[in-house]
Amino acid sequence: MHLKNDLLLRAAKGEPTERTPVWLMRQAGRILKEYRAVRNGLGSFIDLVKSPEHAAEVTVQPVDILGVDAAIIFSDILVVPEAMGLPYEMVEKKGPIFPTTIDSIKDLDKVRVAEPETLQYVYDAIKLTKKELDNRVPLIGFTGAPWTLFAYMVEGSGSKTFSKARSFLYNQPELSAQLLDRITDTIIGYVKAQIEAGTDLIQIFDSWAGILPPEHYRAFSLPYIERICDAITEVPVTVFAKGAYFAREDIAQLNCETIGLDWNMDIEESRKLIGDRKTLQGNLDPCALYGSNSEVEQATKRMLDQYKGSRHIANLGHGVYPDTNPEKVKVFIDTVKEYSQK
Amino acid sequence: MHLKNDLLLRAAKGEPTERTPVWLMRQAGRILKEYRAVRNGLGSFIDLVKSPEHAAEVTVQPVDILGVDAAIIFSDILVVPEAMGLPYEMVEKKGPIFPTTIDSIKDLDKVRVAEPETLQYVYDAIKLTKKELDNRVPLIGFTGAPWTLFAYMVEGSGSKTFSKARSFLYNQPELSAQLLDRITDTIIGYVKAQIEAGTDLIQIFDSWAGILPPEHYRAFSLPYIERICDAITEVPVTVFAKGAYFAREDIAQLNCETIGLDWNMDIEESRKLIGDRKTLQGNLDPCALYGSNSEVEQATKRMLDQYKGSRHIANLGHGVYPDTNPEKVKVFIDTVKEYSQK
Repeated sequence: MHLKNDLLLRAAKGEPTERTPVWLMRQAGRILKEYRAVRNGLGSFIDLVKSPEHAAEVTVQPVDILGVDAAIIFSDILVVPEAMGLPYEMVEKKGPIFPTTIDSIKDLDKVRVAEPETLQYVYDAIKLTKKELDNRVPLIGFTGAPWTLFAYMVEGSGSKTFSKARSFLYNQPELSAQLLDRITDTIIGYVKAQIEAGTDLIQIFDSWAGILPPEHYRAFSLPYIERICDAITEVPVTVFAKGAYFAREDIAQLNCETIGLDWNMDIEESRKLIGDRKTLQGNLDPCALYGSNSEVEQATKRMLDQYKGSRHIANLGHGVYPDTNPEKVKVFIDTVKEYSQK
Repeated sequence: MHLKNDLLLRAAKGEPTERTPVWLMRQAGRILKEYRAVRNGLGSFIDLVKSPEHAAEVTVQPVDILGVDAAIIFSDILVVPEAMGLPYEMVEKKGPIFPTTIDSIKDLDKVRVAEPETLQYVYDAIKLTKKELDNRVPLIGFTGAPWTLFAYMVEGSGSKTFSKARSFLYNQPELSAQLLDRITDTIIGYVKAQIEAGTDLIQIFDSWAGILPPEHYRAFSLPYIERICDAITEVPVTVFAKGAYFAREDIAQLNCETIGLDWNMDIEESRKLIGDRKTLQGNLDPCALYGSNSEVEQATKRMLDQYKGSRHIANLGHGVYPDTNPEKVKVFIDTVKEYSQK
């Protein structure tokens, strides 16, 4: 079972590579008409997430169409709260809504540490994808970080401030820790089962890291990510904590191979804070892909130059925006492939 | 015309003060039932902004009710685009909407450098407020920073990503600079007239600073803020660039007296990056005010301890959230007043 293209895994481990590997967050779905075709044939976003055949199909599309160096399983971070007992709805143009939220100690009964089997449909999608990929490129599995899932479970939806979830940390620190523990236990079982099903790398998305004051990030997010990193011994791990610029030195201490940078993070400064023992992933501004072909090419080269050939996986600094022209994504990918050639 | 309480101005200039001055961003409006009473008696938010008598009334309320050390004129950053030719509507629970936006070179004709007189209603509100304050505390005037106003004028509304406004910077850099120039010229006339009318300090809000990559922030925001800072020679200036952690050293070079910190910014690190020649303003997490009285008190003291008696104006790290209990705001203010007593 040898991967034909294992650039991503070698780069993650700090091994030499012929060129910089490249993929995009949210590449599975969002921008391709081929994705829309599959998506429109089904009832809802969540139906697609829960249909292993279709999830596998849209996972493989960007490998075929865009030529990325990795696939990432098509799924959603909110399958974990759902498995724990808090179902959600995905409202078009509004985002996720949780009809039931965690408000007080009695609500803790509503959520349990989920048995990994509850998420069997994800592992089935992973197995099908591995078969369809036929070892062409690695498959990335993922999970939301405990704090980010907690934020949705308490707030009940996306939010500019997440003030309800954040005030919970001030008012109910012990209850918060209990909920975060249950989420973390669920995640560990879940990512272990993803690896068992065939994923070659796990990425942890702490999408709402940047909304916490540094001391809360250290108390209510990092220790739980640390537990997950320590539990994963089988494959490389990537931690992407969007906006947590204040925690880069702390994240550098985690048992992970790769650290994601968002587009606000200065590359050289990040390298200095993080040191040479981690691979950095990122971090072109997703808006740079709205430029002309030659502007996309220039911006991509400028980004590559700043990494100066150090341990690097090329990506955007955030998920690709839905209205991005796939042709520009192709220019980005092709520029990385050619310009980073050694 | 001596101010009875000039703590804010002395702290801004780095002069000795008996204790740390304190006020809150968005203190005029939002949390007080007395504000809601005035607001409900009028047609809309914009009607209130344009009624000098009522704007003055709600500006003075927090001085009377909460005991803050400064008033900030009740207004909106979007009066500037409106004066330039782009009117907006304020939609309840959604925020501002611009029916017309700047999309291309021909749209530049839609906006002009506004004559300061266009905003006479703001200066009238300032004059009335000064009379009602009767020199009890200073009055703060304000403006949005050029980039933040540009973001609304191009995007047409608030946005999680401001991808339309940000892509404009990539695709139309020269047009962007022209628009930013016009906004800057308008702002300079506007703040000069605010000072003429009686404001004792000007704060520049760059609310969407944190969404730009560092090199875009340096190209499309800082030079315009610099021009405004250089133009204001009459009163102290505060620059609050939310999320622009990567630009703290650059902001320290501006002709301003005070730099605002948001709640993500580490106080000691910020002091190190900014140096001793500026006053820092902030930066308690607005969510800390959702705690019990004793939790609010503890959090406020922890914040004050971190400033270690250096040049400081106490505030939150963001505008006060609308559902905050005014009693907690009072605990925050009283704790600053007592605990910082020298």
